[in-house]
Amino acid sequence: MAVPPASPAARGRSEAGLSAIDVDLHHQIVDWSEVAPHVPAGLRWRVSAKSGPPLARHGFQKVGAGTGNVPMPAADSGTISHPAGDPRWVKEHYLDRRGVNLAILTGSLFSLGVQPGPDLASAIARGVNDWTLENWVRPFRCFKGSILIAQQDPIAAVAEIDRLGSDSGMVQVLLGSAAESPLGRRAYHPIYEACVRHGLPLALHLGGEGAGMSPPSTPVGHPSTYFEWYGSLPQSYMGHITSMVTEGVFEKFPKLKVILYEGGVFWLPHLIWRFDKNWKAQRSETPWVTRPPSSYVLDHFYSTTYPLEAPPNPRYLGEILDIIHGERTLLFAGNYPNWELGDPFDMIRDVPDDLRQGILVDNALSVYGKRLLA
Amino acid sequence: MAVPPASPAARGRSEAGLSAIDVDLHHQIVDWSEVAPHVPAGLRWRVSAKSGPPLARHGFQKVGAGTGNVPMPAADSGTISHPAGDPRWVKEHYLDRRGVNLAILTGSLFSLGVQPGPDLASAIARGVNDWTLENWVRPFRCFKGSILIAQQDPIAAVAEIDRLGSDSGMVQVLLGSAAESPLGRRAYHPIYEACVRHGLPLALHLGGEGAGMSPPSTPVGHPSTYFEWYGSLPQSYMGHITSMVTEGVFEKFPKLKVILYEGGVFWLPHLIWRFDKNWKAQRSETPWVTRPPSSYVLDHFYSTTYPLEAPPNPRYLGEILDIIHGERTLLFAGNYPNWELGDPFDMIRDVPDDLRQGILVDNALSVYGKRLLA
Repeated sequence: MAVPPASPAARGRSEAGLSAIDVDLHHQIVDWSEVAPHVPAGLRWRVSAKSGPPLARHGFQKVGAGTGNVPMPAADSGTISHPAGDPRWVKEHYLDRRGVNLAILTGSLFSLGVQPGPDLASAIARGVNDWTLENWVRPFRCFKGSILIAQQDPIAAVAEIDRLGSDSGMVQVLLGSAAESPLGRRAYHPIYEACVRHGLPLALHLGGEGAGMSPPSTPVGHPSTYFEWYGSLPQSYMGHITSMVTEGVFEKFPKLKVILYEGGVFWLPHLIWRFDKNWKAQRSETPWVTRPPSSYVLDHFYSTTYPLEAPPNPRYLGEILDIIHGERTLLFAGNYPNWELGDPFDMIRDVPDDLRQGILVDNALSVYGKRLLA
Repeated sequence: MAVPPASPAARGRSEAGLSAIDVDLHHQIVDWSEVAPHVPAGLRWRVSAKSGPPLARHGFQKVGAGTGNVPMPAADSGTISHPAGDPRWVKEHYLDRRGVNLAILTGSLFSLGVQPGPDLASAIARGVNDWTLENWVRPFRCFKGSILIAQQDPIAAVAEIDRLGSDSGMVQVLLGSAAESPLGRRAYHPIYEACVRHGLPLALHLGGEGAGMSPPSTPVGHPSTYFEWYGSLPQSYMGHITSMVTEGVFEKFPKLKVILYEGGVFWLPHLIWRFDKNWKAQRSETPWVTRPPSSYVLDHFYSTTYPLEAPPNPRYLGEILDIIHGERTLLFAGNYPNWELGDPFDMIRDVPDDLRQGILVDNALSVYGKRLLA
């Protein structure tokens, strides 16, 4: 897959003058000692080593086609030797080159919520948030930040959302989908209340499954390989969606929007239709679930395009997107610089033409609102 | 949903004179002291109470629309007061009335594989198998049995398969999908070798998830309600399929067939296409997976119709069945007497006409082979 000479996104510029909004750019902390000054003093020593803080991690080692066709800084260029380490370099070599007008930063800390130490996890989140604002968001209008939180301490998470929730540089609340308990549980509700209070969507990102306090990444135990582990990750979303709907989160917080990163979408028809069928027979346990579950799911959840499942017949893609209302629920995700599965613009090649503008631009504007252009 | 006066299955009798084969009839042990004599002497005392042996169970209580329109024995009829407790009554009131020629017995012990005591679990399996043969299979040609095993002791499981594997009354090996580790793991391979040795399909049935040694029934922890728990169960199958394919089970045992009970089918397109996409980038870890994963899945796995997802537009059902080759991979399951989600014949009402004969009769004959008619 060669990089096209002109941006495929640029073919259809919207009325707002935007050609693509990327909701998933994994900006990288290359030197943690830059983050340390932003971490509360008592825990700063845990973060000050260049290689970063002590974090529980799973035993799966990434495999794949290297970094695909990601631009790489030349060894002698004087810039940081990581494709997502320097905001200026990323803007020039990815955003400008591919016609991406705006990118939402998501980093790579998706296991904070399953770290056994809640104070360190919350301190890291706070430090990273300020580091992101100072180094990426304030100097560059093309980057927007996510308020990273560690959900095992909901009180600290709410405080962090309140601390940064009115900052126009921050456009969502971000947490890892790896969790000790499913996200419908009552303990998490103050987090949703805070999201709604500040008009911020909640973003979930895969990655910490099986690490730290996380249960195994499948309901039948730990996988053996990265290949197997990565394939099973959307099951976290199935667990969280089912939990959030059955626990009545969206009856309690009707304005809450949830964005699911990197999980694909083809499992959604199964989930909503099995869910509706069961609801007809089993809703006596959850009288507050007053509508068919599918309507909560389709009203409140959004998905991203990296990686979109690749059916052998592209017709199926259009049909599944029709079922899940992809014309308003699907958001373009670049997943830069993790292109092991392919180029993000190739990923949406088979998307029906009448959905492209929504997926590339309009749906993000609708989900994130005015902040995105502030 | 009233029971139709004439069997809907009877409308299309096949050349073999069969109108429906039900691969999932949950025959019920009402008095465990009947099973006790079949249990090895040393552990017989654990099984001799009428209410049954001590078994770890999850905390979810079944809810639903009662037993739906299941026939119920009258209180004063002198028969066992359970709709699946007496083989003669079940034959007369379910099979004969609904035009079902043959039913495969699956019982209701789907948590044996996650019981902490392997000896008791294996002893129960053995006792139940002999009780089923003596009380249901030998006296009635319309019933076929499953060799129930407890997979946490693969050596005992293989011995049980070898003990009964040439008995024409037994047509498959049955285990709960709840498991301490995913079914691709090497420790389980002797079980698959034994299945292939006797020409028996392997059947997995949901139900024990979250009990005993099982991890939580979602990768993000325990659900709060039966409704939520039941909705999440197909995730076990996603975990097992991914594991069995990536660990090379079907390269090692190319004749192994696996039947997935009660999990629906609409999640399969997601699973196979995400799997294929990942395989292209990540197969360096598993060089023995030489074909796209979808081809192993579609060649080796079979699904059942209870409960089939109910899309709002029946057209989608035809399309999903097309994708998963439902014309040869889908088997009719009555799920008698657990009809909380509806009548099993209503469940297949929207199945395209040209698939009905396969689903009701031919696919079962093809999967189970000559034993079914022996």
